[in-house]
Amino acid sequence: MKTDDISYFRPAIAAMSGYTPGEQPKVSNLIKLNTNENPYPPSPQVDEVLRQFAAGKLRLYPEPMADTLRDVIAALNGVSRENIIAGNGSDDILTIAVRSFCDAERPLACPDPTYSLYPALAEIQGAPCRRIALNDDFSLPEDLAAQAAGANLLLLARPNAPTGNLFPKEEIVRLCAAFDGMVLIDEAYVDFAADNCLDLAMNCPNVIVSRTMSKSYALAGARVGYAVSQSETIAGMMKVKDSYNLNMLTQRIAAAAFQDRAYLRQTVNRILATRARVAAELSRIGFAIIPSSTNFLFASPPDGDGGRYFELLRQNHIIVRYFPGARTGRYVRISIGSDADMDRVMAVTHQIYG
Amino acid sequence: MKTDDISYFRPAIAAMSGYTPGEQPKVSNLIKLNTNENPYPPSPQVDEVLRQFAAGKLRLYPEPMADTLRDVIAALNGVSRENIIAGNGSDDILTIAVRSFCDAERPLACPDPTYSLYPALAEIQGAPCRRIALNDDFSLPEDLAAQAAGANLLLLARPNAPTGNLFPKEEIVRLCAAFDGMVLIDEAYVDFAADNCLDLAMNCPNVIVSRTMSKSYALAGARVGYAVSQSETIAGMMKVKDSYNLNMLTQRIAAAAFQDRAYLRQTVNRILATRARVAAELSRIGFAIIPSSTNFLFASPPDGDGGRYFELLRQNHIIVRYFPGARTGRYVRISIGSDADMDRVMAVTHQIYG
Repeated sequence: MKTDDISYFRPAIAAMSGYTPGEQPKVSNLIKLNTNENPYPPSPQVDEVLRQFAAGKLRLYPEPMADTLRDVIAALNGVSRENIIAGNGSDDILTIAVRSFCDAERPLACPDPTYSLYPALAEIQGAPCRRIALNDDFSLPEDLAAQAAGANLLLLARPNAPTGNLFPKEEIVRLCAAFDGMVLIDEAYVDFAADNCLDLAMNCPNVIVSRTMSKSYALAGARVGYAVSQSETIAGMMKVKDSYNLNMLTQRIAAAAFQDRAYLRQTVNRILATRARVAAELSRIGFAIIPSSTNFLFASPPDGDGGRYFELLRQNHIIVRYFPGARTGRYVRISIGSDADMDRVMAVTHQIYG
Repeated sequence: MKTDDISYFRPAIAAMSGYTPGEQPKVSNLIKLNTNENPYPPSPQVDEVLRQFAAGKLRLYPEPMADTLRDVIAALNGVSRENIIAGNGSDDILTIAVRSFCDAERPLACPDPTYSLYPALAEIQGAPCRRIALNDDFSLPEDLAAQAAGANLLLLARPNAPTGNLFPKEEIVRLCAAFDGMVLIDEAYVDFAADNCLDLAMNCPNVIVSRTMSKSYALAGARVGYAVSQSETIAGMMKVKDSYNLNMLTQRIAAAAFQDRAYLRQTVNRILATRARVAAELSRIGFAIIPSSTNFLFASPPDGDGGRYFELLRQNHIIVRYFPGARTGRYVRISIGSDADMDRVMAVTHQIYG
């Protein structure tokens, strides 16, 4: 019994517009630098897994806790299986965290700007979201813990997105000690950074670190992420995840790719070299660039008009990401692609601002 | 700042024990008939997809809405892309539905006994769950709509699990018309049944039908399910799902398997033949069997002691599922395996009750 003017959706869901992921255009002659994908393929071990895999095994359910994969991840991170939860991408981990720790009485807090999924997850959960403005240079405000007080979960991308900077670790240490609630440090881009917060996740009972294999491991299409925390926290999050959240092929692909450390290091180093070269060249043209600890650059063109640069790149078949807004609108976010792709970006950029 | 005796988990999460999926034993000499897996491999087209797939593509994000797959599913069901949402298994679909329609003020209702995940999903969501007892023969009580009144979402497995019976469709039609809330008809096992409720999903604004490829398509390991409903309902559920909930390989595997209708029909028919044979043989020994429209039998041994039968099968390396409880404890749930596996079940069963 429902007439067309009645919606049974929870009011929060009916009212929200929904998170919009970065465009996945189907046109093939585009240079796609809008979702921080890796320009290089995943480890050759992934291909090996696919070649060897017997499709008949798919008739069976996968390991519900992904124990084999968790053991691989745990061993290489120097922790135990009980400290790891695997997710269908780190978005799944973030969803699980918000469902575990937030509700109408338990707000989420996050910096602004940051990964735009965070407020959307709070909205779905019916939890208030407190957005705390970063300083003008996108550094953490000194009183962040005080501003976040009363929230039950603080989501902190480190390195931050879309800005690319790495909040100093000592500030994170102080923050985790001062904040009376859970802190989830989203380390999606950490393999491109100088340090990480894994030790905090293991030593502080209120800290979770999440990781993804979408960026540095070039496995965005396989959907795999994980979180590290003390075993009590992981056990609680396990209750919230879908029973079989990670499919069998992804579990095997991820385990193989994760173990190929040499390939990871080699790919990351190539991207870091390209990043350094492009950042230097953009600076020479007069771009303001936030120091990047990621596989992208948050760069403001000489005229400070991010929207115009975004459009002109698009007219030249180069897709980057633009975040409208008083502060973010001065920038575009450019994923680091192959050297050939970045040469094309630079050629077009020289034409525009030359 | 957290001492070891403080938990930041939402009280509902801290209190719950968590859903326990059916055991996935690693021992190889077991006959595994406990999670309703298909004894036959998926379509040969799945193997073909894996052989052809270029691993390098995994560096890119998958289609966020799984549009290619949705088009395949829509075409073969005679509906439009806008009527389909794809999920990481139908558990993902169920989670999305509960998050869309339930909260502290919007209870869930479901029969008892039914798929034990439903109450767990309500618990995670902080929504009350009204469990409505089925009649002694596991048929629907005539006043189900009245008993469910006040709930905002009714989850109804048809065919039901773990009982295996198919509620008459005319009762479902009446129920959907009488119930003031959404009705999600979980058709996980529908390919083993005589009819389905797809037309209700398309014609009644308060009806959603969910499906899985885990059972009839033998793709439990790939994690793929979907829901069919009117486009407004699908659009709302899309806001709740994770952005990239279905990985790239699963999207391709699912599209290939879904199109191989001849293989599906052949596999289902083999299982139906085995089911008929085993049901007849168990009946001759004195088992009470709920008429099954699924790939399992809910069967009560001659002495009415399901727990004992479960244990004796286990001692003979045959794993089935036992659901303790006043009514369900008289039965065990036996997935229909290969003919060889079922021959072994029957041999052991004859020994026990012979």
